[in-house]
Amino acid sequence: MARPVTLFTGQWADLTLEDVAKKASSWGYDGLELACWGDHFEVDKALADDGYVQNRWDILNKYGLTCYAISNHLVGQCVCDPIDQRHAGVLPPRLWGDGDPEGVRQRAAEEMEDTARAAKKFGVDIVNGFTGSAVWAMLYFFPPTSQADIDAGYADFARRWLPILDVFKAEGIKFGLEVHPTEIAYDIVTTERALKALDYHPSFGINFDPSHLIHQFVDPVAFIDEFAEHIFHVHVKDSRVQLNGRSSILSSHLDFGDARRGWDFVSPGHGDVKWDPIIRALNRAGYSGPLSVEWEDSGMDREFGAPEALKMVRSQDFTPSTVAFDAAFASE
Amino acid sequence: MARPVTLFTGQWADLTLEDVAKKASSWGYDGLELACWGDHFEVDKALADDGYVQNRWDILNKYGLTCYAISNHLVGQCVCDPIDQRHAGVLPPRLWGDGDPEGVRQRAAEEMEDTARAAKKFGVDIVNGFTGSAVWAMLYFFPPTSQADIDAGYADFARRWLPILDVFKAEGIKFGLEVHPTEIAYDIVTTERALKALDYHPSFGINFDPSHLIHQFVDPVAFIDEFAEHIFHVHVKDSRVQLNGRSSILSSHLDFGDARRGWDFVSPGHGDVKWDPIIRALNRAGYSGPLSVEWEDSGMDREFGAPEALKMVRSQDFTPSTVAFDAAFASE
Amino acid sequence: MARPVTLFTGQWADLTLEDVAKKASSWGYDGLELACWGDHFEVDKALADDGYVQNRWDILNKYGLTCYAISNHLVGQCVCDPIDQRHAGVLPPRLWGDGDPEGVRQRAAEEMEDTARAAKKFGVDIVNGFTGSAVWAMLYFFPPTSQADIDAGYADFARRWLPILDVFKAEGIKFGLEVHPTEIAYDIVTTERALKALDYHPSFGINFDPSHLIHQFVDPVAFIDEFAEHIFHVHVKDSRVQLNGRSSILSSHLDFGDARRGWDFVSPGHGDVKWDPIIRALNRAGYSGPLSVEWEDSGMDREFGAPEALKMVRSQDFTPSTVAFDAAFASE
Amino acid sequence: MARPVTLFTGQWADLTLEDVAKKASSWGYDGLELACWGDHFEVDKALADDGYVQNRWDILNKYGLTCYAISNHLVGQCVCDPIDQRHAGVLPPRLWGDGDPEGVRQRAAEEMEDTARAAKKFGVDIVNGFTGSAVWAMLYFFPPTSQADIDAGYADFARRWLPILDVFKAEGIKFGLEVHPTEIAYDIVTTERALKALDYHPSFGINFDPSHLIHQFVDPVAFIDEFAEHIFHVHVKDSRVQLNGRSSILSSHLDFGDARRGWDFVSPGHGDVKWDPIIRALNRAGYSGPLSVEWEDSGMDREFGAPEALKMVRSQDFTPSTVAFDAAFASE
Amino acid sequence: MARPVTLFTGQWADLTLEDVAKKASSWGYDGLELACWGDHFEVDKALADDGYVQNRWDILNKYGLTCYAISNHLVGQCVCDPIDQRHAGVLPPRLWGDGDPEGVRQRAAEEMEDTARAAKKFGVDIVNGFTGSAVWAMLYFFPPTSQADIDAGYADFARRWLPILDVFKAEGIKFGLEVHPTEIAYDIVTTERALKALDYHPSFGINFDPSHLIHQFVDPVAFIDEFAEHIFHVHVKDSRVQLNGRSSILSSHLDFGDARRGWDFVSPGHGDVKWDPIIRALNRAGYSGPLSVEWEDSGMDREFGAPEALKMVRSQDFTPSTVAFDAAFASE
Amino acid sequence: MARPVTLFTGQWADLTLEDVAKKASSWGYDGLELACWGDHFEVDKALADDGYVQNRWDILNKYGLTCYAISNHLVGQCVCDPIDQRHAGVLPPRLWGDGDPEGVRQRAAEEMEDTARAAKKFGVDIVNGFTGSAVWAMLYFFPPTSQADIDAGYADFARRWLPILDVFKAEGIKFGLEVHPTEIAYDIVTTERALKALDYHPSFGINFDPSHLIHQFVDPVAFIDEFAEHIFHVHVKDSRVQLNGRSSILSSHLDFGDARRGWDFVSPGHGDVKWDPIIRALNRAGYSGPLSVEWEDSGMDREFGAPEALKMVRSQDFTPSTVAFDAAFASE
Repeated sequence: MARPVTLFTGQWADLTLEDVAKKASSWGYDGLELACWGDHFEVDKALADDGYVQNRWDILNKYGLTCYAISNHLVGQCVCDPIDQRHAGVLPPRLWGDGDPEGVRQRAAEEMEDTARAAKKFGVDIVNGFTGSAVWAMLYFFPPTSQADIDAGYADFARRWLPILDVFKAEGIKFGLEVHPTEIAYDIVTTERALKALDYHPSFGINFDPSHLIHQFVDPVAFIDEFAEHIFHVHVKDSRVQLNGRSSILSSHLDFGDARRGWDFVSPGHGDVKWDPIIRALNRAGYSGPLSVEWEDSGMDREFGAPEALKMVRSQDFTPSTVAFDAAFASE
Repeated sequence: MARPVTLFTGQWADLTLEDVAKKASSWGYDGLELACWGDHFEVDKALADDGYVQNRWDILNKYGLTCYAISNHLVGQCVCDPIDQRHAGVLPPRLWGDGDPEGVRQRAAEEMEDTARAAKKFGVDIVNGFTGSAVWAMLYFFPPTSQADIDAGYADFARRWLPILDVFKAEGIKFGLEVHPTEIAYDIVTTERALKALDYHPSFGINFDPSHLIHQFVDPVAFIDEFAEHIFHVHVKDSRVQLNGRSSILSSHLDFGDARRGWDFVSPGHGDVKWDPIIRALNRAGYSGPLSVEWEDSGMDREFGAPEALKMVRSQDFTPSTVAFDAAFASE
Repeated sequence: MARPVTLFTGQWADLTLEDVAKKASSWGYDGLELACWGDHFEVDKALADDGYVQNRWDILNKYGLTCYAISNHLVGQCVCDPIDQRHAGVLPPRLWGDGDPEGVRQRAAEEMEDTARAAKKFGVDIVNGFTGSAVWAMLYFFPPTSQADIDAGYADFARRWLPILDVFKAEGIKFGLEVHPTEIAYDIVTTERALKALDYHPSFGINFDPSHLIHQFVDPVAFIDEFAEHIFHVHVKDSRVQLNGRSSILSSHLDFGDARRGWDFVSPGHGDVKWDPIIRALNRAGYSGPLSVEWEDSGMDREFGAPEALKMVRSQDFTPSTVAFDAAFASE
Repeated sequence: MARPVTLFTGQWADLTLEDVAKKASSWGYDGLELACWGDHFEVDKALADDGYVQNRWDILNKYGLTCYAISNHLVGQCVCDPIDQRHAGVLPPRLWGDGDPEGVRQRAAEEMEDTARAAKKFGVDIVNGFTGSAVWAMLYFFPPTSQADIDAGYADFARRWLPILDVFKAEGIKFGLEVHPTEIAYDIVTTERALKALDYHPSFGINFDPSHLIHQFVDPVAFIDEFAEHIFHVHVKDSRVQLNGRSSILSSHLDFGDARRGWDFVSPGHGDVKWDPIIRALNRAGYSGPLSVEWEDSGMDREFGAPEALKMVRSQDFTPSTVAFDAAFASE
Repeated sequence: MARPVTLFTGQWADLTLEDVAKKASSWGYDGLELACWGDHFEVDKALADDGYVQNRWDILNKYGLTCYAISNHLVGQCVCDPIDQRHAGVLPPRLWGDGDPEGVRQRAAEEMEDTARAAKKFGVDIVNGFTGSAVWAMLYFFPPTSQADIDAGYADFARRWLPILDVFKAEGIKFGLEVHPTEIAYDIVTTERALKALDYHPSFGINFDPSHLIHQFVDPVAFIDEFAEHIFHVHVKDSRVQLNGRSSILSSHLDFGDARRGWDFVSPGHGDVKWDPIIRALNRAGYSGPLSVEWEDSGMDREFGAPEALKMVRSQDFTPSTVAFDAAFASE
Repeated sequence: MARPVTLFTGQWADLTLEDVAKKASSWGYDGLELACWGDHFEVDKALADDGYVQNRWDILNKYGLTCYAISNHLVGQCVCDPIDQRHAGVLPPRLWGDGDPEGVRQRAAEEMEDTARAAKKFGVDIVNGFTGSAVWAMLYFFPPTSQADIDAGYADFARRWLPILDVFKAEGIKFGLEVHPTEIAYDIVTTERALKALDYHPSFGINFDPSHLIHQFVDPVAFIDEFAEHIFHVHVKDSRVQLNGRSSILSSHLDFGDARRGWDFVSPGHGDVKWDPIIRALNRAGYSGPLSVEWEDSGMDREFGAPEALKMVRSQDFTPSTVAFDAAFASE
């Protein structure tokens, strides 16, 4: 479909936006998906300073890049999570404050509303991100866990996110949850449950990313076909199962990049994601937005991988057929 | 090896010990592994009342049953866990108290020490159980989690359990951790880490149960070969992976028995555990203790399953060879 | 569930009913599913002769057997099929007549209505069978075949079967289509299409038989879960895929029993059907009717196989759980 | 072997030959395999009008293209088939006539003889195509079907095609049957049966196309090794099995391109065909003719796919070794 | 087919024949296949002492056992092998002599001729065994090995064995080579080559044993179908592939029973041999001789395994069908 | 890592060094790994003639090529092997002499010492090669083979190679054994045994080549992780398992390139080796030496394959990551 290919800047937040833009442009990317951390896209500055937004575009334009979406995973994560010290590492001090969990959650919720406002001001209509979850950690159901326990988590999610989504709706912005373990939705069953919990709020949808489904053994194509109309944005990211009888699919509390893990993220094209069926499914779904490379591979130099990934995506992003073959075959 | 086959009473705690004993005996079991909940084996009564212990044996003897181990999973779980309302459901009021987490953890630790003392008084030398874990819930490593975060969890485990294990050692009792998700050890890597955290305390070992490894794709034989000398007790329990592209191996916060889960517990012999190689590995390891059926299958009547499981185990528990075949073959 | 196990007499039509009854009884079957061919259950005689029906029951009673269903696959097949010489081999002369296709189809349709009436008179409420199909032979879609072509076949099916089913409904009898290649429904998609074509007529449902799904690679459990409420009867029959790179899954126009075929029917328990998940799915579906062995294996003596199959079914037909394990586990 | 790569024009019959030639040439194809439908190669005109043949070559030459074969699948199909309305869609009116089946079959047979004559006049020595089959539709063997029934179909095939093939022989032209479901030969067993039915007529051979074997699970390499000397021409076409437990390998009477099918055609390189072993097998067979891309993929723009397929073929078509490695290794 | 089931005594040569007979009889075996080592069947004594043969039968008769074959693997091995010290361990001193290789080979050849004579005298018509091979050790083809090198080995085999086989023929005895690595034939290709080397000598055939094919990944059914008419005797023996990424299919020069091997022999029913298709293939081949259990499992007590294996074989040895199902199905 | 890519000249020994250098240079290789046979690198001349070494470099330099290693597989093979006529084909007359086995072994051992000296003089510090083995041919353990028999083989290996390795050490040269069937080490278990037999001599290590592990089903990554510090050099060579139920993994004494073999060598990228995980493992191991293409494929023109292989290697040889993704992701 000749969809635009963008680079998500989240894994490049140690570089300035200008440095990332320069690299992405030289590799041939069409645009950037800006992370709302590092200096790439700062929500507070965008709202406070009219020049800030223009400056972001000036940098993008300088390198011939466009932008379709901004992403605020880290703040979104804090909206529903039980808060612990790890969250301090992903928030700016103004949001962490004294670290009191409920205070953190509320400031995070307000920041997500502001993110919608900033996106509007910036001129993109998609915000991707995470939601956090009050019940993710109850995953294994021991001590014995009831559906009432889990229902409470989805109710908490709805209670906290519906007001945020109403702001999104008012601003004309869509929120794409990256379906992902640790979030309120991480597979087909829980995505359905999350959508229902929000009564299918029109501003809430999915940032589809197959790398989080592969190690759960969920078929990305089944996911797309199930939620076709709710897919707002697409991440190109890959992961690989590396089971050998000694490693665990739960990955043993080991760091990404440790070869003893049961699965890991790898550069797009190096993992178990099969892109051809995904492109077909996206074509069926009528998705015409960007394919945004979220590049993460703890075993590869990102400057080797990011251009290679772009090349892979371009070779895979084919247009659907406009011909009925029987007709062509039989034409007299 | 003609190992004795026992029935673990944990899943029968809704029945009296006498009822369980009567059933198990009629099916042909050699003995029971008594759960320290329900009325099966009450630690406080065992220590307080000399007649209690005798009464337990009277019931067992009446049905021609023996006992090699008692198990206290529920209390053990509370030693290291972050405590939430679900723990109230698995503890007696005297241990839950006001529910203050640290208080619960300390009372649980004391109860585990008492469990060793009660085992000694009862005349068995194995206590099986869980440990809980301060870091299990950090499983996915997002928000970004460091090895220092995890090391802290193992240090907490060692700090809380070493005093307990010293009581075990003093009483001549061994503690067999059932390696299991939600515990400090759940696979090969984390079992090694847990053993090291305790500097290989001689009273700490493993209650081997393959059903918890299958859905992690960890080979039970590799596990036994790795930790042969640390296996104190064996559970016969089975589980089955039921992936179809729509289910997740993480099982979607669904109840056991829900067909949409990616795996589930099933009656021994109905799942993916291959018992023949396990028997061979146990033979190699020199394990001569009981094979204890922990029967759990949300889709089968337990009164159908428990005798069937016994029959399966007896058919599998073969003795190792005492003949060198080349020698026999070549004998002149 | 202690479901009754019956033997379908269709593959024993070379024997008298009395001979089949004697054998089935000696092997321990609970009853017979009577084929409406051979001398087992003759529709015309049942309607014409009051003593006939009693005589059938006398034979069954003599051997302690019951009956839950009669089956009329051969006549049903002729209702929608394009008729060729092969159909002459499966019809009595009174139905074949002059062999004019439309005449055959109409006489077959009337006979199916009579079959409902005969079932009523006989005192069973299930008739199993086939429907035939005007479009089965267009399977491969070459020459180019349109959905309009196929729709016409489903319309023909509805036109011919709705009047028959109205008779079934009036008589209080259910018709269970054995979903099967050569029929209007042979997999999940076509079963849905057939049900819709009849607007979900209440007298039309399924005689579930996994052996016809296995070689299509359709998961029998997915089928049951999809159509749980429409399953009226169950056949226990098995098949096996035997691909080796030289055989074709389409089986090369070779006879059943030819080892060069890509799949074949085999005695229950010898094939690729996994019965444990099917029993669980039937338990979920609330199916409490008979498990009826349709024994067919071109490589095995049926007198060896039929009793072996019964033993297999009895060992598999377990009752669902009535215990919530978490509750039992945690009981205090 | 640096075999020439041609594009089969059958799926481009909605375009004029000149349009197809222009495109194929611009993508780098060496030549075209002309379909005898659309305006690409009209048998009647070729025989009637000497300028017609020259004109075809003029167009090819203008774009630097060559031609090794013409193909007449649609007419060939009608030689043995039971004729129904679908055949009207693939024949010109002069051959369909009044649609009386036997008349259609005879006119089709004559047209195939003319096709040989036209090929001779055009200067190519291969005609590819289909044969049709009187017995294909009896595939499943229900109603019960005997080998005598099938033998009759092969006898009909021989009776109808031997006279045609004698014309081919007289003209020095070879007929390559594209082994394919719906034809007299569709796998290894039936190809052997078809060859025998013709007593191995020297003008009858195979247009090898792996895409029709893949979904039957027949190994294309086994096919080539079995029939090496009978392979007259090669199609490069791909297909993919897409089973998920809900789809059927029989594809549910669904259109090509419907994601619910159990298999589908896809652009060469995107399916399950493994080209490397096929190239090796063709090298073993000594096949040095063209590799002709039959491009069909209902999910991809053909203008994206056709040049991509060419590139794939060129990268795969390696020359066999001329060195004995042991000799080279050991050379002193 | 109710084939008799015998126990091969080769792995019980540390026991007297009487002890083996007593055990086998008590387990329910029908007979013994006597090894020509240990005291079970001594060729020299059989020929020298008329009472010896009677005495063997007296022991068998005492325990109600029969005998269909004797086996002389160890001596047969020495006919073609390059002789090294290991051969001294499998030969009696009278055959080893001074150990000069050519002398050993010639004495072994004479002993095989005597074995045919002894079989005749004993009243059985099958001798099973090995042949040895001059070229087995050249397996990997490095240093570079030519087909001329291998042809020389087959010529040596023919030169040494044809005279032996002529004695077999004269005595009316058949020799069944147990196709096996280390022998002149070990798979399908080499069995064909061996048969051709002997120009299909009528006294030379196969003692079929699937356990030697499994770890080569050769399909036992393909083997039987290929050599149906040459199968003189059948061994029931099982083996298992146990690859885990660290073990080698070549088994690392490790002892049988070492868990690090890539494959191993296991008790029949515990390995990868699928018996159902083998029984079908033997039925097709018309084999009606004994199924002889060659019991070897370095991880299991043979007294546990031998009766279990008998039970497995009896449950598998079904009779072929005598009914044409289509006929029965359609019977009117 | 931008490792240099070299071409091993062993399979090009029918060409002069200059011809090979010209070709390799034109394809883009960085250097050559010189075989000590053909005229590529002659050990005796290198030691005898100072100009010889310079001349080799002159040729390399002329084509812009470098050299990191020389290889002497053929002579090394003769150090431990039982010598037969095949060895005459791989040795020059001066080493074969009268062919007396022990004399050949001793001359081969001396030549290996000279090879170290020649490497030193030539200015490379790696010699790759084979060792031979006295016990390889005992692979199958029949006739019954004891660990004492095998231990004797490893002792022989140590006795013969330790003096050679001491010369290597004195010269500062490392010997890289290409782990390979027919050698003293061919998998993980035997490599460990070989290293121990030499008490981990510092000059003895591994020339890693995955193609020899694939058909043993040994995971190349497990091999690298196990022996990371002992890997001195790396061969890029590929092999493919081609099992179909009729072929044997032992390959039936058939020539390389025969399609009936169970496995074969193929051009890198065409086989079962997965290069991405190997590159990651080499990165973990800190290996920074050359990737040397040992090109062998009996079914492909080497002039097609060698440049294709180079392109494949360059595309795979990625640099490891220098970024911690969590850090980048979370950067504020």
